Amino acid sequence: MSAQLVVLYHTPVDPTAFEQYYQGTHVPLAKQIPGLRSYTINKGPIASPAGASPYFLVATLAFDSLDALQSALGSPEGGAAAADVPNFATGGVTMLMFETTAL
Amino acid sequence: MSAQLVVLYHTPVDPTAFEQYYQGTHVPLAKQIPGLRSYTINKGPIASPAGASPYFLVATLAFDSLDALQSALGSPEGGAAAADVPNFATGGVTMLMFETTAL
Repeated sequence: MSAQLVVLYHTPVDPTAFEQYYQGTHVPLAKQIPGLRSYTINKGPIASPAGASPYFLVATLAFDSLDALQSALGSPEGGAAAADVPNFATGGVTMLMFETTAL
Repeated sequence: MSAQLVVLYHTPVDPTAFEQYYQGTHVPLAKQIPGLRSYTINKGPIASPAGASPYFLVATLAFDSLDALQSALGSPEGGAAAADVPNFATGGVTMLMFETTAL
């Protein structure tokens, strides 16, 4: 069993400032979230067959289970990372949480 | 290096029919795509901290590289899977393709 938090960031007002803040401040905060098993983002642009991608950055954070994910978000470190998002996500953000199954 | 195709399905007109078609017809087609390294979907509902999730099903297909992903989509099997999507994605779909990096 595994669970994911997928964070979909829309294009921000200032992409360069977003990237700098994300890498310099947000990633170090997010990496402290307890129970985090992997953390990947897109490297380079996001393509979309139907035209321009509605998203600028996609982050996938993996946890052992949905319980572990929910505990992580409820932890002080999870709260700090979540509270940091409005500091840079000027284009808005969509967060999705779910248990995963391999096909 | 690795690359992902993330397929975000909006809530379909008939969720039960969608699930049946997806599992019975689309998954077998998609699993034939050459170079596919892993294929995961959400098991159970998708939660979103800000309220209802805009998406009903999230599929993540992993490939060795962006080149492998693009070749896969250009293959007959990739074309067949892509051509099948409108048969069941009655709520619309957003596809994102990108190279990934682990943080």
